[in-house]
Amino acid sequence: VSGVSRGVLLIVGLGPGGPDHRTAAAVRAVMEAEVVVGYGPYVDQCADLLDPAQEVVRGAMGEEGARADEALDRAAAGAVVALVSSGDAGVYGMAARTLARAASLADPPRVDVVPGVTAALAAGALLGAPFADDFAVLSLSDLHLEWPVVERRLLGVASSGIALALYNPRSKARTWQLDRVLALLVQVRGAATAVALVHDAGREAEAIERATLGTIDPERVTMRTLLVVAGESGRDVGPWLVALREAAPPVDPAPLRAEAST
Amino acid sequence: VSGVSRGVLLIVGLGPGGPDHRTAAAVRAVMEAEVVVGYGPYVDQCADLLDPAQEVVRGAMGEEGARADEALDRAAAGAVVALVSSGDAGVYGMAARTLARAASLADPPRVDVVPGVTAALAAGALLGAPFADDFAVLSLSDLHLEWPVVERRLLGVASSGIALALYNPRSKARTWQLDRVLALLVQVRGAATAVALVHDAGREAEAIERATLGTIDPERVTMRTLLVVAGESGRDVGPWLVALREAAPPVDPAPLRAEAST
Repeated sequence: VSGVSRGVLLIVGLGPGGPDHRTAAAVRAVMEAEVVVGYGPYVDQCADLLDPAQEVVRGAMGEEGARADEALDRAAAGAVVALVSSGDAGVYGMAARTLARAASLADPPRVDVVPGVTAALAAGALLGAPFADDFAVLSLSDLHLEWPVVERRLLGVASSGIALALYNPRSKARTWQLDRVLALLVQVRGAATAVALVHDAGREAEAIERATLGTIDPERVTMRTLLVVAGESGRDVGPWLVALREAAPPVDPAPLRAEAST
Repeated sequence: VSGVSRGVLLIVGLGPGGPDHRTAAAVRAVMEAEVVVGYGPYVDQCADLLDPAQEVVRGAMGEEGARADEALDRAAAGAVVALVSSGDAGVYGMAARTLARAASLADPPRVDVVPGVTAALAAGALLGAPFADDFAVLSLSDLHLEWPVVERRLLGVASSGIALALYNPRSKARTWQLDRVLALLVQVRGAATAVALVHDAGREAEAIERATLGTIDPERVTMRTLLVVAGESGRDVGPWLVALREAAPPVDPAPLRAEAST
């Protein structure tokens, strides 16, 4: 007779970099796991939490499916498993594909997702508050999605006037896409629109470059860059890029009214 | 002669609820502060970190400007100050207005923003991974922004086909706006589109209701609800709502290729 398995898989977002932006739930999930599974650099990102008694399964780039299956198999066999991702595992991380695979199993283990600080939020905090008045998170990768769909989404969102956080903006092998995106954005949003390149957001090497859609050098953008495009309400205030949710810039700053913070 | 002030203001996102989704940097910022400033319920949210030696300034709803000024004044006078917000302070929180006020000062103190897990990420993790293939964060509040702008942004984003996280969807005094939004979304995205009402995401009372754009009961939506609208790639897999970034649903699941996680 099969009893109720105590196995569980936690899909964990470690935050953008070091321990600073990691949540208490993520820390606990890694420390309490019997098996920690992840792409090598993400395992390194939580090395300070690991214990020799834990089993660590380091995966390679390009083996996401195998990694998800390994984590599910181990949990189904009764282990407490943490599958770690950088940032938030639900934002271009391991959560979606792993849940889809879990749902296809005859007898899936319990699976929970532990949210984390995604790169856009870390980059936004570094810049000031560019995402304080609506924003969209888009990936420019066409590895899994046909380019016309990427472009259609970009145009719809850009026309709305909100700020953009562009993930996976450019790689060594993927260069014309960003050129094309910048040309489209200039048409829709104007060459004077502020942009920021945030490299290694939340990591030790983090660095900011500021430009506009008209002056940005695409060669400066890499896979480690999050590209921020200011929304229609974005403006420079002192050293910061800030989006103010207001009908119009106040000439004489008026008392601000209540707004729910979430 | 005036020396270099050691005063600093940290604008801190506490995450969506209890200690679980709070980052290490947020915890440290609150514990190391001499003065903790915040809207009452947000101060309560970090009460476990407070020490009797700290000064706590609890603000009321509707006094956001005064609260920002108080925090800036205290930091300018040399204190280490934490201004706390729920979620991420840069997403409809206190960061934008406070930075704008800081920039208007002749001699502003140092101000840093500490990012946090925003409600959309906590709600997404509860539901599965609805934001894994591009998404937008929109507030439906027209308290500070004219309604036509809210509606124009919604239409642009909805037409792009990506998932939506709708903040401040409805309150006791603000009801027709959500009815209007749902009618627009049915037109653009179709009545069969999956939606989820996530109440008190990340808090003890958290609860999920699932529906579609055609079946949702707007009366169930309150100021404590985050409304999630599935994107074109969103689908139900087992108990989860998941967005799969794929050209088309695989008939026979193929090996998945590498994708950078952030």
